[in-house]
This record gives sequence, C-alpha cells and structure tokens, in this order.
Amino acid sequence: MKNVIVGQSGGPSPVINSSLAGVYVKAKEMGADIVYGMRHGIEGFLQEKIVDLGTVLTDQAQVELLKKTPAAFLGSCRFKLPDPEKKPEVFEQIFALLNKYEIKAFIYIGGNDSMDTIRKLSDYAVSSGSDIKFVGAPKTIDNDLAETDHTPGFGSAAKFIAAMTKESIRDQVVYQNKTVYILEVMGRNAGWLTAATALSRGEDCTGPDLIYLPEVPFDLSKFREKVAQLLEKKNAITVAVSEGIHDAEGTYICEYASADKAVDAFGHKQMGGTASYLTQYCAAEFGCKVRPIEFSTLQRCCAHISSLTDVNEAFASGSKAVEAALSGQNGLMATLVRESGDPYVCTIGLSDVHYISNVERCVPLEWITDDGSGISDEFIKYARPLIMGENPPIMVNGIPYHLVLK
Amino acid sequence: MKNVIVGQSGGPSPVINSSLAGVYVKAKEMGADIVYGMRHGIEGFLQEKIVDLGTVLTDQAQVELLKKTPAAFLGSCRFKLPDPEKKPEVFEQIFALLNKYEIKAFIYIGGNDSMDTIRKLSDYAVSSGSDIKFVGAPKTIDNDLAETDHTPGFGSAAKFIAAMTKESIRDQVVYQNKTVYILEVMGRNAGWLTAATALSRGEDCTGPDLIYLPEVPFDLSKFREKVAQLLEKKNAITVAVSEGIHDAEGTYICEYASADKAVDAFGHKQMGGTASYLTQYCAAEFGCKVRPIEFSTLQRCCAHISSLTDVNEAFASGSKAVEAALSGQNGLMATLVRESGDPYVCTIGLSDVHYISNVERCVPLEWITDDGSGISDEFIKYARPLIMGENPPIMVNGIPYHLVLK
Repeated sequence: MKNVIVGQSGGPSPVINSSLAGVYVKAKEMGADIVYGMRHGIEGFLQEKIVDLGTVLTDQAQVELLKKTPAAFLGSCRFKLPDPEKKPEVFEQIFALLNKYEIKAFIYIGGNDSMDTIRKLSDYAVSSGSDIKFVGAPKTIDNDLAETDHTPGFGSAAKFIAAMTKESIRDQVVYQNKTVYILEVMGRNAGWLTAATALSRGEDCTGPDLIYLPEVPFDLSKFREKVAQLLEKKNAITVAVSEGIHDAEGTYICEYASADKAVDAFGHKQMGGTASYLTQYCAAEFGCKVRPIEFSTLQRCCAHISSLTDVNEAFASGSKAVEAALSGQNGLMATLVRESGDPYVCTIGLSDVHYISNVERCVPLEWITDDGSGISDEFIKYARPLIMGENPPIMVNGIPYHLVLK
Repeated sequence: MKNVIVGQSGGPSPVINSSLAGVYVKAKEMGADIVYGMRHGIEGFLQEKIVDLGTVLTDQAQVELLKKTPAAFLGSCRFKLPDPEKKPEVFEQIFALLNKYEIKAFIYIGGNDSMDTIRKLSDYAVSSGSDIKFVGAPKTIDNDLAETDHTPGFGSAAKFIAAMTKESIRDQVVYQNKTVYILEVMGRNAGWLTAATALSRGEDCTGPDLIYLPEVPFDLSKFREKVAQLLEKKNAITVAVSEGIHDAEGTYICEYASADKAVDAFGHKQMGGTASYLTQYCAAEFGCKVRPIEFSTLQRCCAHISSLTDVNEAFASGSKAVEAALSGQNGLMATLVRESGDPYVCTIGLSDVHYISNVERCVPLEWITDDGSGISDEFIKYARPLIMGENPPIMVNGIPYHLVLK
C-alpha cells in the first residue's frame, strides 16, 4: 500500500482547499492507494480522526467545488508539537499511527507554525530511521513565509481587501461633512495585507489617504498631524492600519486601550482593537465623525471573490508538495518562484523547511514611503498579478455553495 | 424646456445608482431635455451644485457601469428640510432654483427621511400653485419603508450578509476549541438585515445558532443561558445581532458599554458597539474565545455581489418614479408590489408619500420564533427571491471598476 495523508493547520484561507485539491489529484495521479485527510490537523490525527478523501471527492465536479469552498475543509488546529527530546511519546504515537495506516507521504498545508511541525516530524523521521516523507504546502493570507515569493491565500485576501477598500471609499465620499474612516486589516508583524488596501488605487479611486504597517513604528502625534492636515483639504479621510501597529517602544496601539491581551498556544498576543482605539482617539482630537471598519475574519474566508491566480497557485503548490514526498524528498516546503514580473510567470519550487519554520518575512522597508504612512508603486507591481482572475462561486439559492464534510 | 432633476439622499446602497440609471433612461425616453443630478442631495442643490447627467452618461455602456457602481454616484446628504411654515425662505429658494433650471419633475431617491423631503416639497408645490411634480424612488438597505413589499438595496445587502455569514461559519467551524462569534448587522429599529443572516441556512450550512432582532426586547440573562446550552453541544457558536437590540426598558445593549451615544441630524442615536459589548460579556461569562465580526458599512457598498433581482427592481422603480412625475403625478413614491411569491413576480406601483415618510416597517413578530432568538421559514420565503441572480462587476486590474463623477 502506498498511502498519503494530508492535513490543514493554522488560520484558514480562501484557497487552502485548492491546495488540498492539488494534493489529492496529484497523489491519485501518482498511484496513491488511499489519500487520507486528518481532521483538525495534527491535533485531530493524534485523536485518530481521519477521513478517506476518496469517499468525498468522488468526481471532478467535487474537486472543483472544493476549490470554491473557503476555510479548512478538513478542519484546522493551532497545536504546537513539543520538542521530540522532551516528549518523545508524542512522536512515537504519531509514527505508530502513520505506520498503522501505511502512510508513505505526509503533507501539511499551513503557515510558519505549521512548517515547524513539518520540520520536527521530518527530522524525527531521519533520526528514527523511518522512510515516511514529510513535505509542507504553504498557506497563509499573511504572506509572511520565507523562501517563497508569496504565499497561497494572500492573493485572494488581498483581492477582497482591495475590492472592499474601493467599495468603502465610494461609500465614504458621498457626504460633504468631515469623517475619518479607520480600516483595520489583519497582520501582526507583517503588513502585506494592509499594504493591499493600496491596490484599490486607480483612475477611478484614490485609495486610502494613509496606510500604516507594523514594519515601521507608529507615532500617534505624527498621525494626528497627518489627519489634521488632510481634514483641512478633504471631507472623507481613509486610514488603513495593520492590527499589529506598535510604537517605537514596541507597545501595540491596541494595547493603549487595554493592556491585558490574551496569548495563544504559540505565545502570540491576540490582536484586535486598533481601529477601535484610533476611532476614539480621532473623535476626541478632531470632534468629527469617525468610523472603524474591521475586515476581521471576512478577509480569510472570502472565497466568493478569490483570485484565480491564487487558486491555481495553491493547487499547484499542493501538487508539488505531494509529488516531492512521493518522489522520496523530505523536510521541504513547496515555494512560489516568480520567474518574471511582467509578464507575470510563476513556477513552483522547493525549499528546506529549516529556513522557513518560525521565520517571518515582512514588507521590505523600501516599499514603505519615507514618512511611514504610504506604500510605493513597487509593492503594487509585486502584488497586482497575484489578485488577477476570477474563480466565481457556484451560486445556489442566491449565495455560494460549498463542499462540506459531514 | 422639459427638464428633470434627480437626487440621492441618506445612507448609500449597492443599487442606489441603478435607480438613478432608471430615472435617467426613462426621462430621456419620455423626451426630457436635460436630466440634472443634484450633488449631495437637497443640501447640495441649495448650494446650486448640479450636474447635467447627459454629459456623464454618454452611452449605454456608461449606464451599465453606473448600475455596477455602489454608493451614491451624485453624492448624498443627511439634511432635514424645515417646516415650510417656520422657514418659508428655504422653500422659496428651492422653488426659485427649480424654476431657474426649468425643472418639471423632481425625483428623490432615498429612505423614509428622504420621503419626508418629497412630502414637504410636493405639499408646498400644491399650496403655492407650482406645477412642478415631486416623486420619490425608494432606497434603503434597511427594508423599513411602508407601503412597499421590500426596498431596492435590501436584496443586495441581504445577499452580501448571507454570503459572508455562510463563509464566516465555514471559517468558524474549523477548530475543535470553544469559540463564540458575534456578527453585528445594521438595523436600528428594523431587523430585516439581521434576519438575512438566516439566508445562509441550507444543506451545506446550519446558519447562525441565534439571531436577535430589535423587534423583540433582548434579555441578557436568557441570552447567557442559550449560549451556555449551545457551548455544551458544539464548538463554534454563531450569534447574529442587530446593532439596535435593546432591553425591555428600551436601553440599547451598545449603551451598556457607554451611555453617551451621539445623535444625528434626524435625532437618531448613532449605533455600533453591540458586538463589542457582547464579546466582552461572553468572554467574562464563559472564559472562552469570543470574536466580534461587524459587517459595518461593507454591507451597504457591496456592489461586487449585488442581486440582479435587486438591481433590476431598483432600475424599474427609478423609471416608474420619473414616469409618474412627467405624467403629472405628485407626492408619490414608487413601490415594489409582490404579485406572486412562487413563482416570484414583482411589479412597480405608486403610493402616497404621506403614508410613507417617517414611518418604519419592522419584521412581523410572527416571523420571529417564540423565544425571540430565531427566524421562521416565512421570512426565508419572503427574502430568498430578493437575493437571486448576479450582476457581476467589470473587473479591471483584478478589482471592480466604477463610474466616478469627477
């Protein structure tokens, strides 16, 4: 038996299921007997929650429907594998289960925390003499993985953010009174998604007036000055901020409102509240109407406006990951390689997960304007190709239809 | 000269420009010489800010693009006309301007506050012996106008809300840990849009677990009990709430957090903060993760996923309004008349604005479940036809393109 197992981990994305589809289709093409899906990632696998994907993806239409379904089809988890030296029993349990189901290739679709899982498992396989191969497929709307030009998920989230920013700006400019709109976008340390609000710029839209990324310290008094200047010139001011903007001392702006933020399994502080704080601040400073708009989790599940480029690259990177594992490669992640910018050409490569896990790739400082409140055209050139093309949903009863695991 | 003037007022909607297109096309068809648009509604008109729409809508493609552009193309206002007895000079100024531009028909696209404007102007025309005719075209995502089965704008906002609720629920069910999601939807006194979250229900989606409308008093302790029961049975709980839910004493839940809410030109309290308050409440009560999701202004500018039924009805009601005015009728609003539910057939009628202005139509209590936390199938039957059909945007550079007045 030559079986494959695939899992999804971390925050969902609009195209994480396209990667799953890519793994499934390529694995079957390469002669895999059973392609198992782990429910809720490695956490669910440890509870032996698995599904035979062949019983769900029964024809090509189901595979296409999977590519139009947002959020982890198999379920996800935020589970950090322990160090194998400290808790070898967890690894022994995982490998016993893998052997029980005659798994030859283990594919994990996720971000840098998930690549930490691939790193630990692939290292353990080598040190314990197992011939099971572990390869990662990249996934994160945050676009913060090292070794890859961009990540599957970013293009679709960026497309939604750019489209909604543009539609919002249309909504904002209708009145003659002074109003400040604060758009809050996901991104703890990397501002890629916030930068994507600049993709709304065009001959029919000015884009946000101010854009603040976490790559550059946020200075509240300089911000106040900028907004005050803008309010003298125009009525509706649009400010886009990353949830993770912080001051020069490293204090998150959202902590200005309340200092005791919860911490997740990986020790990351829970974000949120930045727009809310800046709304109160601006209302008090300027005495005008201020409206926060938080894209919240909508930006990671917006499959109805996903980018076809992104969908196809997610599929291809899933295919590449399982192809590598079934060809005997181990401890790698599929990467997106930009061969050419204009015309845009992207191929799929492979990189060692040791260079990827627990590393965050941020927006280059030279793509942020000198005063830290804008985005250069270099970013636009980089990001524009990633949001191109449509993968329209299958509409049933007026809304998108999804493939669901029951 | 037989000239027409048209304005847009109140909060924008995804299809308010389809009504504008309907007014323009029908007015030209009926031989109008110039169709003027007032910038920023009656407020801008008083400042003599007008535009000749013939210079912008130069061909049929521009008209179609207008139908795909969200938010008031002409700009909007929230301007309450005074009583003509108290400030006759405002009315004298308006009629002097109307005569200056040889206007025969005045069309105002808006909600019940805007129909108050039509009522005052049409009454003034009659009492002052003017032969200018004033007719309203309905517009509000809130669906709270009297005398009409539903309002243009509701169908598209409901489609966005239903689609995003469904995509969010897909995102929410991926984890195994306990989480409560609070979706906050617009609606001060009428819960139509919040009820629209129930349209996410289907064979591939359960829909929200709890839905609270402002039509029924909200009881915090009963809510706590419901959520506690649900948390024993499942991991991800989805609660949809209107921003305007209030307790039996009439205190808004968002006021529990801060009592001093600002008031707009019409004396309406500014909403917002309901999800935020309930998030803090649930986090303290249940000790689990709680996430607020506010659709905020996105729900009124979401033209990229507008309902074709809604777009067509908005166009037809704009046409009907100007047809009535140019045929010599006065003091009316175009209405949507449901001739048949299944198959859905809708025609356009006319009603006296005196029955419409300043009246709010709420969700019938019999469509709300007895315990006040759910929506019946009667609502689904009513609302489903209104979200059917697509009016896909023209995509340029990966995002929707809009017609803009420069």
